[in-house]
Amino acid sequence: MSPERRSSFLAEHVDRLARTHLRDLLKDAARGKQLRQRAGPILLDLSRQKLDGQALAALGDHVEASGWQAARDAMFAGAPINTSEGRAVLHTALRAGGSSLPSPAPREALEEIQHTLQRIDALVHAIGLGDASEFGVAPGITDVVNIGIGGSDLGPRLAVGALAPYHVPGVRSHFLTNVDGQSAYELMHQLDPTRTLVVVVSKTFTTQETLLNGNVMREWIRRAYHGDNAKVSRHFLAVTANVTAAESWGVPAAQVYPMWDFVGGRFSLWSAVGLSLALAIGSYNFHALLKGAAQVDDHFRSAPWQTNLPVLLSLVELWNRNAQGRSSRAVVPYADLLTDLTSYLQQLEMESLGKQVTPQGKPVAEATSPVVWGSVGTNAQHAYFQSLHQGTDVVPLEFIGVVKPAHDLEANHDALLSNLLAQAAALALGKTLDEALAEAKHGSDEERRVLAAQRTFPGDRPSTVILLDELTPESLGGLIALYEHKVFMLGHLWGINAFDQWGVELGKSIARQILPALDGGSADTSMFDSATRALIEAIHERRLAP
Amino acid sequence: MSPERRSSFLAEHVDRLARTHLRDLLKDAARGKQLRQRAGPILLDLSRQKLDGQALAALGDHVEASGWQAARDAMFAGAPINTSEGRAVLHTALRAGGSSLPSPAPREALEEIQHTLQRIDALVHAIGLGDASEFGVAPGITDVVNIGIGGSDLGPRLAVGALAPYHVPGVRSHFLTNVDGQSAYELMHQLDPTRTLVVVVSKTFTTQETLLNGNVMREWIRRAYHGDNAKVSRHFLAVTANVTAAESWGVPAAQVYPMWDFVGGRFSLWSAVGLSLALAIGSYNFHALLKGAAQVDDHFRSAPWQTNLPVLLSLVELWNRNAQGRSSRAVVPYADLLTDLTSYLQQLEMESLGKQVTPQGKPVAEATSPVVWGSVGTNAQHAYFQSLHQGTDVVPLEFIGVVKPAHDLEANHDALLSNLLAQAAALALGKTLDEALAEAKHGSDEERRVLAAQRTFPGDRPSTVILLDELTPESLGGLIALYEHKVFMLGHLWGINAFDQWGVELGKSIARQILPALDGGSADTSMFDSATRALIEAIHERRLAP
Repeated sequence: MSPERRSSFLAEHVDRLARTHLRDLLKDAARGKQLRQRAGPILLDLSRQKLDGQALAALGDHVEASGWQAARDAMFAGAPINTSEGRAVLHTALRAGGSSLPSPAPREALEEIQHTLQRIDALVHAIGLGDASEFGVAPGITDVVNIGIGGSDLGPRLAVGALAPYHVPGVRSHFLTNVDGQSAYELMHQLDPTRTLVVVVSKTFTTQETLLNGNVMREWIRRAYHGDNAKVSRHFLAVTANVTAAESWGVPAAQVYPMWDFVGGRFSLWSAVGLSLALAIGSYNFHALLKGAAQVDDHFRSAPWQTNLPVLLSLVELWNRNAQGRSSRAVVPYADLLTDLTSYLQQLEMESLGKQVTPQGKPVAEATSPVVWGSVGTNAQHAYFQSLHQGTDVVPLEFIGVVKPAHDLEANHDALLSNLLAQAAALALGKTLDEALAEAKHGSDEERRVLAAQRTFPGDRPSTVILLDELTPESLGGLIALYEHKVFMLGHLWGINAFDQWGVELGKSIARQILPALDGGSADTSMFDSATRALIEAIHERRLAP
Repeated sequence: MSPERRSSFLAEHVDRLARTHLRDLLKDAARGKQLRQRAGPILLDLSRQKLDGQALAALGDHVEASGWQAARDAMFAGAPINTSEGRAVLHTALRAGGSSLPSPAPREALEEIQHTLQRIDALVHAIGLGDASEFGVAPGITDVVNIGIGGSDLGPRLAVGALAPYHVPGVRSHFLTNVDGQSAYELMHQLDPTRTLVVVVSKTFTTQETLLNGNVMREWIRRAYHGDNAKVSRHFLAVTANVTAAESWGVPAAQVYPMWDFVGGRFSLWSAVGLSLALAIGSYNFHALLKGAAQVDDHFRSAPWQTNLPVLLSLVELWNRNAQGRSSRAVVPYADLLTDLTSYLQQLEMESLGKQVTPQGKPVAEATSPVVWGSVGTNAQHAYFQSLHQGTDVVPLEFIGVVKPAHDLEANHDALLSNLLAQAAALALGKTLDEALAEAKHGSDEERRVLAAQRTFPGDRPSTVILLDELTPESLGGLIALYEHKVFMLGHLWGINAFDQWGVELGKSIARQILPALDGGSADTSMFDSATRALIEAIHERRLAP
């Protein structure tokens, strides 16, 4: 299949704007005002997107005609908008306690959520005091290992990293994710099994990677207790919807925290999936994170599209993806604490929006999720920014900065922010051949022309700047919620279900077929394609080599 | 500018192959044999690329007509192929000692390289023994901090991480990169200044990030010695081409290790830029890394295009980028030890090949570097693989696996490899609507059709598999050299200079203009565009907020 890459209703605006360089668009200060909007601690600057008032109005007409408010309200109210699985989508209910607006979510869900939050608070409090025996946990815990993958890993990992200045003393956090044994191996050499608490996070409690790593850690702890399983179980908590499976694996039911069908993995940070985060930053800060998200929920539920940050972000993505035909977007946080933000957004956006059929089983009309990639700046400037400035493709960027740092190294922070601003400016403004020629002072005319051509920058390359006042639990919660709602909006506008992920199934089922051919369970490879057979043979041959 | 995205000489092959699914191409075992090639410990499988014998032959004719052997030999011999800077490109000379073929590099360069390697060996040996006072270094060093950014960071960082099982005991490695003060702040809280050796790596010794971080670390160590600069200097080494600047900054000349004009930053791991790597893994393993690279150099210099791994990789990239119009490539190592490989390749490829003018200052004829992105599997499967399987764009993938692990957790490793093989198979084979229908057992015909449509996979999505026998210093060196030569080949085929990076300059110069407006040096912002002015104001306003 090959959907149209260009939205026809935007074509005239693309054509008109093709004749105007961003350098000139930026001269219109009123335009800039319209494209800079704030919600609480988050400033969103879209003024370096290749949009003018007319194009923005066309996008606004489009979204207003789409019935987005009704779709949004249906999500908040718990309608089964994840149609392929017949499920509600209620991650917003997880933080409804921090909202100023009344929650329309089903009362039963809100009560379960409230009950679970109280369990988490009590556990975190007890572990902080050093005695969580009434919750089944061994005394003297110094290290928490979160075992999970995908949505059971990326959210807690992002937030634990981003909120390092908020960590409670005495508990270190670790994330064991990949089925590659190297990470488990290194962790076991680093930690004391009798002082380690393992949180096994898997909605189904059947995730291959998580269970294999869980098994490895369980054996390691069991050896330390000479096989005394009652003592071993005090080192495990589970977060899952499958209590039975967790129990039979070895986690007592009272040590199981719930996941629900109405929360998808990649939207689950706010649930018990955030348990290792709550242990790292304490209950007060965990609730502050929820509150920050709830405030963006309120903003999304009440602001008109013109000032609604998630709606604006979704319209700009639609513009870049479907009108301008951009195939990827680079996310570049200028903050080491936000190192994991890009991989978090990769999952949130690409797993939600990388679809090619509608819920009715029809091909989509337009290109869906772009590739989301990137890494922290200024590092990125010294890696791939060459290509963003002078490569042949235009890649829209998203810069994320923090105004006030969590440290007192001011010269560093000024340099960091000046680089963020400068990159956004350089991408937009560029440098003309004449400007480059004026700088080329040496050599013949021909030599000057040749060098100046290589030192010319086309500019006219769009970017978004997001500035957080400070990086706090509140602002991080708000930032994540902002992206969640942007994803919701794009699912709505593209007419796809953002909340299922059938595309992950085929590889898993083929892996189950291949495994016996690798682990010695079966030598029959006749069912596989020729390349798979050849690689299995190559692996066997090299494994046997001395 | 907007270069043509499609190479016309390949168009007929694209059209022909559009009618054949990869599922069918894979039935031809002879084709598979031709597309699987080995060099030492590296197996390259290109059989899941959408190529047949005719298309491959056309690519072969193209490269043979391009004079690639002469261009390659000119690089090895030290011709000034980096024309915009008038420099030779001699990273291969850095490892010529491990080659079986005689080096055509200038004797003077080879002698300087040899001399520097001997200095590194002696220093590493002395630090390993605990007394490097004759090299100016304080006794009792336990931690080495590499301060560098871009090419002065990514190579050592990749190799130190990848070769963790080879680390010498007693010395821990750290990388301080970003100008964000958060990382320096955390490092200073973690380390003992009197037992820390700082290696400052900057070719020009003017890199803003590196000097700011160097200043912070120098003050920290100075405080520990109550301002005794003679003692402070024993904690610093420099790797630079600017000895004078390093000396006046505070590193005695005898503690400066050279960089040369004939080695670009992103190709410099093999030089003294690898000093912190050599300290981490010891001289023996550092030389093994060089030898592994040299063996791939020999392969590149002697194999015909049909079996030449770097040449084949470059032709496949040309095919995907210019014939098939793919705008990005995902690099997915199935090895936690290779976590940093993707960001290393991002720089190597995008900084080298993200260009739009030729060395003669003419616009390029074709699209150049795609976006290079990705992360380790199986994690990636649970993040963005949904989009790679069922999204609207085709993204070629590069899977990298390791046959023998460095640990004994076999069940994990079997699961890891089975997933790698399964993903490559699933992307190529897909799942038809009929297959999905056969699995949809419940509901009405319409419900079954709708669900099956969402569980259909188009397949026909290309990937490359690279398998290393083991992850050793030799195989890592070979793998990196493989990509270096691929980059060289693409620069040659696209007619661009892969060895300069003018695109990083404009942002730097604008940052220098903005800095005074942020650090209080100047309040005049009238020279800036409206967006920059508005963001500077927003930053000032929030900084002053309570």
